[in-house]
Amino acid sequence: MTYESREPAEEPPLAKRLILGEPLTSEALDDQLLPKKRALPIFASDALSSVAYAPQELLMILLVGGTAFLAFSPWVAAAVVVLLIVVVVSYRQLIKAYPSGGGDYEVASKNLGEVPGVVVAAALLVDYVLTVAVSVASGVDNIISAIPELNPGRIELAVGFVILIVIVNLRGVREASFAFAIPTYVFIGSVAIMIVVGITRTLLGDPPIASSAEFAVQGEQLTQAAVILLILRAFSSGCSALTGVEAVSNGVPAFRKPKIRNAQMTLVLMGGIAILLFSGLTAIGLISGVHYAENPCHLIGFDCEAGPQPSLMAQIAAATFGMGSIPFFIIQAATACVLLLAANTAFNGFPLLGSVLARDGYAPKALNTRGDRLVYSNGMIILGIAAIAVLIVYQANLTTLIQLYIIGVFVSFSLGQIGMVRHWRRALRNLAKLPPDAAAQASAAYERRSARTGLIINSLGAALTVFVLLIVTVTKFTHGAWLVFIAIPILATLMIGVNRYYRDVEHEIAVDDTTHFGSEGDLAIVLVNRLQKPVVKAIDYALAAKHEKAVAVHVAVNEAESAELQRQWQEHRIPMKLLIIESPYRSYASPVARFIKKYREQNGSSVVTVYLPQYIVGHWWESVLHNRRSSRIAQQLMLIHGVSITLVPWLLDSSELIYGRRSRPLPGDERAGRPAPEVQHTGRRVSGAAGPPTPDTRSLEG
Amino acid sequence: MTYESREPAEEPPLAKRLILGEPLTSEALDDQLLPKKRALPIFASDALSSVAYAPQELLMILLVGGTAFLAFSPWVAAAVVVLLIVVVVSYRQLIKAYPSGGGDYEVASKNLGEVPGVVVAAALLVDYVLTVAVSVASGVDNIISAIPELNPGRIELAVGFVILIVIVNLRGVREASFAFAIPTYVFIGSVAIMIVVGITRTLLGDPPIASSAEFAVQGEQLTQAAVILLILRAFSSGCSALTGVEAVSNGVPAFRKPKIRNAQMTLVLMGGIAILLFSGLTAIGLISGVHYAENPCHLIGFDCEAGPQPSLMAQIAAATFGMGSIPFFIIQAATACVLLLAANTAFNGFPLLGSVLARDGYAPKALNTRGDRLVYSNGMIILGIAAIAVLIVYQANLTTLIQLYIIGVFVSFSLGQIGMVRHWRRALRNLAKLPPDAAAQASAAYERRSARTGLIINSLGAALTVFVLLIVTVTKFTHGAWLVFIAIPILATLMIGVNRYYRDVEHEIAVDDTTHFGSEGDLAIVLVNRLQKPVVKAIDYALAAKHEKAVAVHVAVNEAESAELQRQWQEHRIPMKLLIIESPYRSYASPVARFIKKYREQNGSSVVTVYLPQYIVGHWWESVLHNRRSSRIAQQLMLIHGVSITLVPWLLDSSELIYGRRSRPLPGDERAGRPAPEVQHTGRRVSGAAGPPTPDTRSLEG
Repeated sequence: MTYESREPAEEPPLAKRLILGEPLTSEALDDQLLPKKRALPIFASDALSSVAYAPQELLMILLVGGTAFLAFSPWVAAAVVVLLIVVVVSYRQLIKAYPSGGGDYEVASKNLGEVPGVVVAAALLVDYVLTVAVSVASGVDNIISAIPELNPGRIELAVGFVILIVIVNLRGVREASFAFAIPTYVFIGSVAIMIVVGITRTLLGDPPIASSAEFAVQGEQLTQAAVILLILRAFSSGCSALTGVEAVSNGVPAFRKPKIRNAQMTLVLMGGIAILLFSGLTAIGLISGVHYAENPCHLIGFDCEAGPQPSLMAQIAAATFGMGSIPFFIIQAATACVLLLAANTAFNGFPLLGSVLARDGYAPKALNTRGDRLVYSNGMIILGIAAIAVLIVYQANLTTLIQLYIIGVFVSFSLGQIGMVRHWRRALRNLAKLPPDAAAQASAAYERRSARTGLIINSLGAALTVFVLLIVTVTKFTHGAWLVFIAIPILATLMIGVNRYYRDVEHEIAVDDTTHFGSEGDLAIVLVNRLQKPVVKAIDYALAAKHEKAVAVHVAVNEAESAELQRQWQEHRIPMKLLIIESPYRSYASPVARFIKKYREQNGSSVVTVYLPQYIVGHWWESVLHNRRSSRIAQQLMLIHGVSITLVPWLLDSSELIYGRRSRPLPGDERAGRPAPEVQHTGRRVSGAAGPPTPDTRSLEG
Repeated sequence: MTYESREPAEEPPLAKRLILGEPLTSEALDDQLLPKKRALPIFASDALSSVAYAPQELLMILLVGGTAFLAFSPWVAAAVVVLLIVVVVSYRQLIKAYPSGGGDYEVASKNLGEVPGVVVAAALLVDYVLTVAVSVASGVDNIISAIPELNPGRIELAVGFVILIVIVNLRGVREASFAFAIPTYVFIGSVAIMIVVGITRTLLGDPPIASSAEFAVQGEQLTQAAVILLILRAFSSGCSALTGVEAVSNGVPAFRKPKIRNAQMTLVLMGGIAILLFSGLTAIGLISGVHYAENPCHLIGFDCEAGPQPSLMAQIAAATFGMGSIPFFIIQAATACVLLLAANTAFNGFPLLGSVLARDGYAPKALNTRGDRLVYSNGMIILGIAAIAVLIVYQANLTTLIQLYIIGVFVSFSLGQIGMVRHWRRALRNLAKLPPDAAAQASAAYERRSARTGLIINSLGAALTVFVLLIVTVTKFTHGAWLVFIAIPILATLMIGVNRYYRDVEHEIAVDDTTHFGSEGDLAIVLVNRLQKPVVKAIDYALAAKHEKAVAVHVAVNEAESAELQRQWQEHRIPMKLLIIESPYRSYASPVARFIKKYREQNGSSVVTVYLPQYIVGHWWESVLHNRRSSRIAQQLMLIHGVSITLVPWLLDSSELIYGRRSRPLPGDERAGRPAPEVQHTGRRVSGAAGPPTPDTRSLEG
């Protein structure tokens, strides 16, 4: 009988194409790489966006001590800036040394060993989730500052944005970066202008005045120690300005050649801009006398019931350009956008790290398979879900989220830097080992110099980041950061577990010298329930495979049915012996299993191939109605020695949906994306796939 | 190479056994059948338990009009009792005519056609869910009436009980009925005693006084029409006393022989008890002056903030025996238990109906497979989930749930009765057709008489139930019942859809005369990614199957890996040709598909068997880490003509868990339950399974 009725198509379902765009070939990967001007918005948006909340959080913490404490803020801000510079410079070194995109994870694991590496990875994963949460929360805050009516739906809004970002990213990196390039530049530009305008107005003796300037604050009575602690807390909150600096180092492979130089330049450019915006905003925040309180109800004069407390950004914008003015809305819009881009950064970083981990066997291999659009779809979806969960649990409250945020960042910072120190040390040792002949020494001189610089820079970086990590831990631990200290170890342990598991399996299935062939005997069993086309096809195939012995087996659960089957068997003259097996239980597999076992006892350990019809359906819901029993049988029979299961597909009419409308030469293409002709454009050729068969293939004939 | 390393076991996982008990054979099915004294608690608990809330709801509705309206209650209660009698008598007829357990569904579909039948089925399914919800909610109310401290956790409590009941029922019907027999009898006994005591005290001039007696009620001002409507509403709420009467008719197959007589007697007994308890409780409720308000805050003098309003049952018990007395607690406990049993009834009825529907092709076939314990596990789990959902959505609020409840009951009542009328009509017509000879006439005489009685009874039943259905609809529709009017049609449509689907598939795969065999050509392809034992086993099997041609195919995605593979191929002298196919895409399946297509073009439409190693694992989480790619490949290749997939199982060490500790001769037994020797006890013999092979089997050798 003939099964040639259907022709597959190349098209994925329309809806999927509409949302995700056309599938892409591997060749297209190169075109997906980023020129600097596009890389900046993608990788910088995280670091830059953090200036939208860092100054606010810094001033907010100080305000806990009362307005007087705001006097400390310039010094605290200065400390943050210094730290930022050091970190940027340190990462320039890191990018040069490890351009593969593994970032801190790679550095730590290569120089400090597995556990530190995995810890960094865990810290980074946690951070990517929090980056999304914090950025989206802050973005929503800024939107609400402009449109207070949206306040009731803040959480829904936040969740909605995350979902949007996931979809956009499933479309692939290039469209993403392009769609997102503009707002980043608008943000940088508009905020810069705002700062300039603000400062000029101040110099002209007409400083901007924030709406919250007149609100008094009842400062807490603090002991000497408490004062210091408060200042340190403010500092660590300010350090949230550093978050995202590492993004570039994780994204180097996504840059155009020369990757390293481009990445480094992008990093420095980004650092510079971040510093300007951060200090500028802090300054104007002070000048305009913004009073942003952790609990708005502590602001004497502010009606915290009436509505939300406008974000620092919004207050400054309103003070500088006037509330409700066009520039005000531009600033708020750009801020919101850039914050959402920051969330987007995580969707570039997380899946990339995930795939690196999968490659190293620390995460399920599924994370290392690129989707239709050359993006690591699975990773993106996981990240999206995690971020949404966090947002809901913490009610999209920025201040709470910030507490969790910075820890992870500095864990990876510190371990990364320490790793770099080790790296340079080793480099220098190796250089020292060189033969003392002039040529080698000369060539080594430059390297030795750069290694020394690297060592100095990263040592400084390591010292500072570790120090800050301590401060952050001390000041944030009780404010929720402890959660991160639980999450990171758990994640790290899981990763190591996965790694050990894969390793054991590898070991278990590795081919050894004992390998030899020659299993004997060959019995084919076609399981028959009722005589229908799928079964007939299975019988037909079993016959075509010319097994030594082939028998159709029917498990008699219902007397009448098996009688009818035997009748039909005669009627249609099925050219295969029908064997009826009784079953005292409802189980179908168990009697067959007994039969096989018995047969093998009598005929020596044969290879037994069990033929099972398998329905191929077009709708997900159809699978609820099919294949239940046969898959259960397969599951059980596969436990018997010598048994292998042959699934003979039966394509139900609905399965045509899988192929889409137009008829195409080959299935599977819906993942590959391009029809054969275009393959040749790419220069490569698919031996055995397109075109005439290779010698290999020909050797099959005859 | 040898794969004989493992021996399967008969044991299911210990945990499963502990919760579900030992598996049972089909033979055991008979022992699971119910004697009357056990059947009563199982099938009657639903109808009986409804007296725990029916009087309360009846009085509550009347109280809306003010205390004066309570004067109507005796008449309303009387009406309910009359209805109850009629329904019970009608169902006696139904049981006799349709003892197969299909109940109203079978009657309606056989006599009124498909659509009414499916509608009844849908109504019943909805009702089973609501039975669970209402009973559990009321049960929790009564528990809380005794222990008010539990009030905050009422929903959690309700959900917890549902889960408990699901587990108990997954253990199988017999244990269930046994475990549940006692409380039902305790309930009947204790409530009866309470009624007697209450009435005697009243006759002795010392009537019990309910705690709520002194609370005044601000009755609403009602128009004439509103008064009538209110009384009708009270009546329909009172009709909730009838719910569960149909349970017996659905459970006939579960009775011991003579099934029909036993079922009928159980039904009548149940009806009698229900009537006594219902009228008794309503009477004492009136005597003791219970004032139970829809909204407790409308009770003038009752502090509705302080705590929950005690249930009518609790108030009567407290009034009769004294609050906190031992009899009081016995009554509350028994009431709670019997209500939970009512929920349990649904877990007997719902899966049974589900399996009947599956058998008739109106529900997924999976509902018709009995689980390890001879119970329809899937149906029970679905019911449990649905009930929990309803409880959570309606906050386990009894009054709200009652509104939804009664509709479905009376939909099935009415259609069932109408169906019976048709049934008797037809019976009489057939009897009329008999030849007019004495013998036939004589024998027909009795039948004709009984048919006439049946016709009269069921006509009355139909008239009344339809009338009540109208009342219920009118009075409850706006109070939430509309939801049921949406749910039932949707369910019915789904069922018909499923039926049509199965029918179409049946038609699609039916063998026709065009059937003929003789597919030619036989190519085996072993997909090789890396050279590991599972692949080697696959190759070994492919060789053993002696295909005309066999080739190992490797899709080259990573240059290095494929080079390494080729090296190993030489080293281990694999006795099969290795064919490397390049892939410009990440897809593995697509190039293979092209190759197969090409091959078939050149060699005629061969049958191509693709060998794929399949990992068998012991933990659910392992499946996250395995088989992803191979199953995706299988999915895609099965779409190509002539391709069948052979899964060569590779049992990872962890898979030993599947077998449990002790080594047993055969797998699959964990579902069958009994080791081979005991099979012989059952008298039946499993040809080809245990013992020497049958002629059939022997005919295989040579």
